[in-house]
Amino acid sequence: MARTLTTVGFDADDTLWHNERFFRITQQKFAELLGDHTPVDLDPERLGDRLLAAEQRNLGRYGYGVKGFTLSMIETAIEVTDARVPASVIHELIEAGQMMLAFPIELLPHAQEAVTALAGDYRVVLVTKGDLLDQERKLAQSGLGDLFDAVEIVSEKTPEIYREIFSNQPGGVAGTMMVGNSVRSDVVPMIAAGGWGTYVPHNLTWEYEKEATPEGDPHFHQIKDLSELAGLLAKLG
Amino acid sequence: MARTLTTVGFDADDTLWHNERFFRITQQKFAELLGDHTPVDLDPERLGDRLLAAEQRNLGRYGYGVKGFTLSMIETAIEVTDARVPASVIHELIEAGQMMLAFPIELLPHAQEAVTALAGDYRVVLVTKGDLLDQERKLAQSGLGDLFDAVEIVSEKTPEIYREIFSNQPGGVAGTMMVGNSVRSDVVPMIAAGGWGTYVPHNLTWEYEKEATPEGDPHFHQIKDLSELAGLLAKLG
Repeated sequence: MARTLTTVGFDADDTLWHNERFFRITQQKFAELLGDHTPVDLDPERLGDRLLAAEQRNLGRYGYGVKGFTLSMIETAIEVTDARVPASVIHELIEAGQMMLAFPIELLPHAQEAVTALAGDYRVVLVTKGDLLDQERKLAQSGLGDLFDAVEIVSEKTPEIYREIFSNQPGGVAGTMMVGNSVRSDVVPMIAAGGWGTYVPHNLTWEYEKEATPEGDPHFHQIKDLSELAGLLAKLG
Repeated sequence: MARTLTTVGFDADDTLWHNERFFRITQQKFAELLGDHTPVDLDPERLGDRLLAAEQRNLGRYGYGVKGFTLSMIETAIEVTDARVPASVIHELIEAGQMMLAFPIELLPHAQEAVTALAGDYRVVLVTKGDLLDQERKLAQSGLGDLFDAVEIVSEKTPEIYREIFSNQPGGVAGTMMVGNSVRSDVVPMIAAGGWGTYVPHNLTWEYEKEATPEGDPHFHQIKDLSELAGLLAKLG
């Protein structure tokens, strides 16, 4: 009997390794740096809202990743201070962004075992969005690079993009399970493309990526962490 | 007899469409904006040198493209003014960067005909570096997207990357001619990879991309413009 699933797609950031926490650390630093220069009613939470609004406004031109995030921080710093922020603070924002591009990769629990266990029996494909060079750096540092049959760094995770990527894999998109921590990017568009989606929650997820899980959809699954992935796939056949 | 060449790789920026001129316009604006805030001995040329130095220093972290260029402009503005540049000027630099991400694509002479003429007889592959989303936008706007059998947006153009891209094409890298305006990125590493390189000079080329042509190398060719490409390829067989 033909197998149901022959290919597994993995998201990278906060699915295989920590990422969002470096954004949170930087955002905290952003709030500290701007504290002395913003109106008193702009508490860190409201400041975070303004930054998120800038990020979303800029997604269509910058795409995902640290460079766009840094530019959105600078833009927000200028905006919320009515252009009174000193250049020295902007310099520190640039340096904070550069630190994000150099943070050491730390794998999430079970990531290495999960990918290694599947690499023999399935085609395993990494699908990630963000800055090209930075995603390549992180993959290289993760030590997982050689396990993947293909690596796709994409500007957006849409049903069309998933179809394009997985139509070339054996089993096509219908025979592929995408695994990731973003319901919005890894699960919903993959199921819309005709594939399968497994949600692996991460305790830190970017506001923008949050979305209700498609409960009841037979192509949707959820696991506690990556230690449960091989068992789930074996069950599905 | 087997054909010598079966695949043609095209660079994009300043090979198929104008690009560098938008960097030049922005750099001029950068000099104008900073004019009132920099020491008198820092003329536009020296300011350009400082910006180029920042771009090169940041290549390893930002990679190529407009987002990194914008961040390097801001960094340079802070540096050359000893952090005295007003936030309003930095805001204008951010806007100048955003304008670069929205400039309308204008094809170079003969680009459309050259790609169209080859698309039937050769595999045609676009190979470009820069920001993922921006390169995708430019390709979509160019109207040439459907002519290419494959599009590769890469973080760097090295012999290894060329080998990886073209080993999957019929004829492999040895049967592929890469065509572009950068001797450093499009010609030299492609020939080092075992392929062929054709240099199509553009009147504006980024300082960083300049390099001596490999005169006398039988895999090196130079043409005046893309109208000569089909003839050159026919001659080589």
